[in-house]
Amino acid sequence: MAAAPVWSVDPRTGKRREQVAAEATAEDVDAAVRAAHEARGPLAGRAVRAAFLRTAAALLEADRDRLVGAADAETALGPARLTGELARTCYQLRAFADIVDEGAFLDVIIDHPDDTATPPVPDLRRYKVPLGVVAVYSASNFPFAFSVAGGDTASALAAGCPVVVKAHPDHPALSELVAEVLRTAAARHGIPEGVAGLVHGLEAGVELIKHPLVTAAGFTGSVRGGRALFDAAAARPVPIPFHGELGSLNPVLVTEAAAAERAEAIGAGLAGSMTLGTGQFCVKPGLVLVPAGAHGDRLVKSLADAVGGTAPGVLLDHRMRDNFLAGVAERARLEGVESPVAPGADGEHAVRAGVLTVPARRLTAGGAHDLLLEECFGPVTVVARYADESEVTAVLSRLPGNLSATVQLSAEEAAGQGRGAQLLAELTPLAGRVLVNGWPTGVAVAPAQHHGGPYPATTSTSTSVGGTAIERWMRPVAYQNAPEALLPPELRDDNPLGLPRRFNGRLER
Amino acid sequence: MAAAPVWSVDPRTGKRREQVAAEATAEDVDAAVRAAHEARGPLAGRAVRAAFLRTAAALLEADRDRLVGAADAETALGPARLTGELARTCYQLRAFADIVDEGAFLDVIIDHPDDTATPPVPDLRRYKVPLGVVAVYSASNFPFAFSVAGGDTASALAAGCPVVVKAHPDHPALSELVAEVLRTAAARHGIPEGVAGLVHGLEAGVELIKHPLVTAAGFTGSVRGGRALFDAAAARPVPIPFHGELGSLNPVLVTEAAAAERAEAIGAGLAGSMTLGTGQFCVKPGLVLVPAGAHGDRLVKSLADAVGGTAPGVLLDHRMRDNFLAGVAERARLEGVESPVAPGADGEHAVRAGVLTVPARRLTAGGAHDLLLEECFGPVTVVARYADESEVTAVLSRLPGNLSATVQLSAEEAAGQGRGAQLLAELTPLAGRVLVNGWPTGVAVAPAQHHGGPYPATTSTSTSVGGTAIERWMRPVAYQNAPEALLPPELRDDNPLGLPRRFNGRLER
Repeated sequence: MAAAPVWSVDPRTGKRREQVAAEATAEDVDAAVRAAHEARGPLAGRAVRAAFLRTAAALLEADRDRLVGAADAETALGPARLTGELARTCYQLRAFADIVDEGAFLDVIIDHPDDTATPPVPDLRRYKVPLGVVAVYSASNFPFAFSVAGGDTASALAAGCPVVVKAHPDHPALSELVAEVLRTAAARHGIPEGVAGLVHGLEAGVELIKHPLVTAAGFTGSVRGGRALFDAAAARPVPIPFHGELGSLNPVLVTEAAAAERAEAIGAGLAGSMTLGTGQFCVKPGLVLVPAGAHGDRLVKSLADAVGGTAPGVLLDHRMRDNFLAGVAERARLEGVESPVAPGADGEHAVRAGVLTVPARRLTAGGAHDLLLEECFGPVTVVARYADESEVTAVLSRLPGNLSATVQLSAEEAAGQGRGAQLLAELTPLAGRVLVNGWPTGVAVAPAQHHGGPYPATTSTSTSVGGTAIERWMRPVAYQNAPEALLPPELRDDNPLGLPRRFNGRLER
Repeated sequence: MAAAPVWSVDPRTGKRREQVAAEATAEDVDAAVRAAHEARGPLAGRAVRAAFLRTAAALLEADRDRLVGAADAETALGPARLTGELARTCYQLRAFADIVDEGAFLDVIIDHPDDTATPPVPDLRRYKVPLGVVAVYSASNFPFAFSVAGGDTASALAAGCPVVVKAHPDHPALSELVAEVLRTAAARHGIPEGVAGLVHGLEAGVELIKHPLVTAAGFTGSVRGGRALFDAAAARPVPIPFHGELGSLNPVLVTEAAAAERAEAIGAGLAGSMTLGTGQFCVKPGLVLVPAGAHGDRLVKSLADAVGGTAPGVLLDHRMRDNFLAGVAERARLEGVESPVAPGADGEHAVRAGVLTVPARRLTAGGAHDLLLEECFGPVTVVARYADESEVTAVLSRLPGNLSATVQLSAEEAAGQGRGAQLLAELTPLAGRVLVNGWPTGVAVAPAQHHGGPYPATTSTSTSVGGTAIERWMRPVAYQNAPEALLPPELRDDNPLGLPRRFNGRLER
C-alpha cells in the first residue's frame, strides 16, 4: 500500500497546491530516529554545533525571499509578518550559538573532598550532558519560529541533541525547504544530515514519541493533540520528558483607575494585540476583565471601533476556520453574552474579528459559561465586565494556567500607590509571564524570557523561548573520584575552557 | 467504619509493637493538603524558612537518643548507622538553609530593554517561585535521610513549598516523632504546623498524588510502587512533576589490569559495599563485571571470603525478606549461575548475604537471564565473568538506567594510560553518577552531588540529594515592564538582597 500523500494547501482558496511528500511510515520514523541518534557524536563538540547554528541562520537569511514566499503560500500570514518571523528565527539560532559558546548552561559544579561534611564529601564534579534525540512537534502558527528550525530545534541542537521534527500539516512544503537548509548547514560542518530529520503525518508523530531512542520532546499546539502526546510519552516503558505548550487564555485585568485614565488607548492596544496575525498567537489576550460603568464602556467602545475596522483575515487552514466559527457561535449563544462586534465568516475563506462581552459574575458559577474560560483560537476576545474587586478575585480563582497574565494600571498604581504590587502577586500564580501596561503578543528572545506556565499553558515548568529553554534537553551527571587525566576539560580544576562554575561552593564567573 | 490501624512492627521478631495511628481517609488527606496549602504564605520569607530548617536540625539532634532508639526498634538498622543517618539528615537541613540564604537557586535573570534585538526586548525580569504543596513519599531504607525530615522535605521547604509526607509503613512510630519535631520547629518561627503534614496508608498515598492542590511529588522506593504513582501523577487532569527514585542495579566494571593489580582489595571493598546496611541501599552494587581468568578468580575468592564471613542481618520487614529469598532463589536456579556464597534465610527473621556468579555472555541474549539485570533488594550481588571487551560492551548495552556506575581501574589506567577515559565515557550514558576506584554506597550531601539517573533510576532528570535538589520544587516566572515600585526586591536593579544573578547578559556573583 502506498503511503498517504502530503499536500500543500493554499488557505486563501482551500485548494491543494502540490504534493510535497508522503506520510512517514513506522519504518521511515525509525530510520530518521536512528540517523539522528548516529549524529550525537559529531554534534558533541561545542564549537562545531555553535558554528552549525550560525551557518543555519546565515543560510536561512540568504534564502529569505524564497522561504517567505513558500511560507505565505501555505499559511496566508503575509510577507511582512513572515519576514519578521524569519529574522527572529535567525536571531534565535545565533542566540543559542552564543549560549553554547558561553557554557553556563553546562552548570558545572566542582567539590573537592571535604572530611568535615557529614558524611564526608569525596571529589565530586558535575555538569550536564545532552539527553539524546529530541522529537520536535512544529506549530501551525509560527512556520519559522516554532517549527523546523524554531526554538525547540535550536535549543536542542545547542544542547547537543539531534532532532527529528514532525512537520505541521499547514506548511509541509516550507518544512521541507527549511529541513534542507539545516541539512546543508550540517554538512558544511561535517555533521551528518540525519542530525535534523523531518517526518510528516499524524501517525508518524505518534510513532516518534514512542520510539525507544527518542529521549525528550518539544511540542507547540492544541490542548487535545498535546495532551495525547504527553500521555503517550508518560506511558512509555521508559517515560520521557514532554515539554508541551498547549493552550492559554492570557487574561488581562484593567483596573478602574487605568480605565479612567486611558480607556481609549487600552481599547485600541487590546484590539491590536488580539487581532495580530488574525488572532493566531498563543499569547493572544482571550479574556479581559474590564470594570462596569462609564470608563469601562469607553474602553469597550474603543475596542469595538478598532476591531470593527480591522480587515478580514485568512486563518491557517479551513479546519481551524470551522473551529473558530463554531467556537464563537457557541460562545455568543450563552446567556448574557453580547457581541458589540460579531466575529464570523467573511466569504468562503476569511473570517472577521469580533468582541464578546459578558458580566463577570457569569464566569464564577461554573456550568456552560466555563466555555468562556477556554482558549478560542482566532481573532476574538471576551470582555468580562466586573462590578467590584470580589468579582475579579472570583474570576481569577477559576482560571486555568496561562502563558501570560497582564494588568493595566494607572500611572499612580504603577508608581506604587494602591494595589499594583498586590495585583502582580495575585496574577503570578496564574501564569509564566506577568505584564504591566503592555500586551502579551510579541515574545522576546532574551535570557530572562519565560514562555511557559501552569498547565495547560505548558506540561512542564520549562520555557520554549529564551536562554533557559536549553535546560530541557540536558541531564546532570556527577563524577566521583575521577582522576583529572580522565575527566572532560569542562570538569578540570584549571578550567581550560573558562566556564562559569561553582567551585568548592563559590560561584565563579 | 473505623479507619484501619497502623502498627509499628519489630522486624527482628515480626511482632507488632504498638498501634501508632490510623490510616488516613480521603478526608484526612484533604485536610492535611489544605493545611499545608495555607502555610505557603508564612513560608514565603527566605529568612524565616532558613531559620525553620536550622531549628528543625537542632531539635532533631537534641532528641537524638530517643529518635535513634525508635528508628532501630522499627527498622533493625542498628544504632551506629542510624546515629550517622540522623547526623546526615541534620547536616542536610542546614545545607539547604545555607542554600536559601545564598539565593542562587532563585535563578534571577534581568534584561533591560534592548531595541537592537529581533524582536526588540522589553524590560524582563525572571526568577523562580515555589510550586506549592509537595507530596513526599518516604523510603523504607532511610528512616531519617529519605523520610519525614529527609532530602525531599528539606529541599521542598527550602524552596518555599509546604509538604505532606506519606509515612513508610516500616517506621510509622518514628515518622510520628519526626513530624512532631518539624511541627515544633515550625511553631517556633510562627509557621503553621500544617506546613509539614503526615499521613499513613497506601490508599492515602494515592489520594495524595491526586489532590488538586498538590503541585509536585518526591518519591523513593520500588519500581512498582513508584511507577504506579508516576502514572497517577501524569494522568491527573492537571499533571504534576513526579520526581521518583525507583530502582538501580549500579553496575561495576573491573578492568583486567585493575584485577591484576589489586584483586583482593577490590573483592573486599565490594563485599563491604554490597553488604552495608544488609544490602538495603539504593546504590548497592548489584552487578559486577569481572574478567575471567586467574586475576578475576582471586577477586571472586576475596569477595566470597568476606561475604561468607559477614554476620546475618535483619531486613526492614518480612515482606522484603520474602522477596529477597524468592529473588535470590530464582536467580540461583538460572542456567550457568553458581553461588560461591549462597544467599538465603538465617533462622526465621534474618538473612545471610551471598554472591552469585554467571558467565557474562549469558547476559547478552535476553530471555530468563534478564532477571540478573534487575535490582534484587538485599545483600546479594551478581558477578558476571567476561571473556573479552566485546562481552563488556554487550552487557553494558543491555542495562537499564542507573543511579551509579563504577569502574575499577589500575593505577596506570587511572593516570590516563589505556582506556580509562573511554570507559568513563561508556558508563556516562548509563548513570547519574560515575565513580572511579570507589564504591557507590555513601551518597555525599554536596553541591555537585547527583543522585538520579536514566529511568528507572529516576523518573525525571533531577536529583534527590545535593544542592540542586531544590530545583525540583520551583517554576520560573518573568515580569515584563513591571515598574521597580511593584517588583519583589529579588528583581530590582539595585539588588538589595545581594543575589547572584544574570544582569543584562552578564553573570554577577
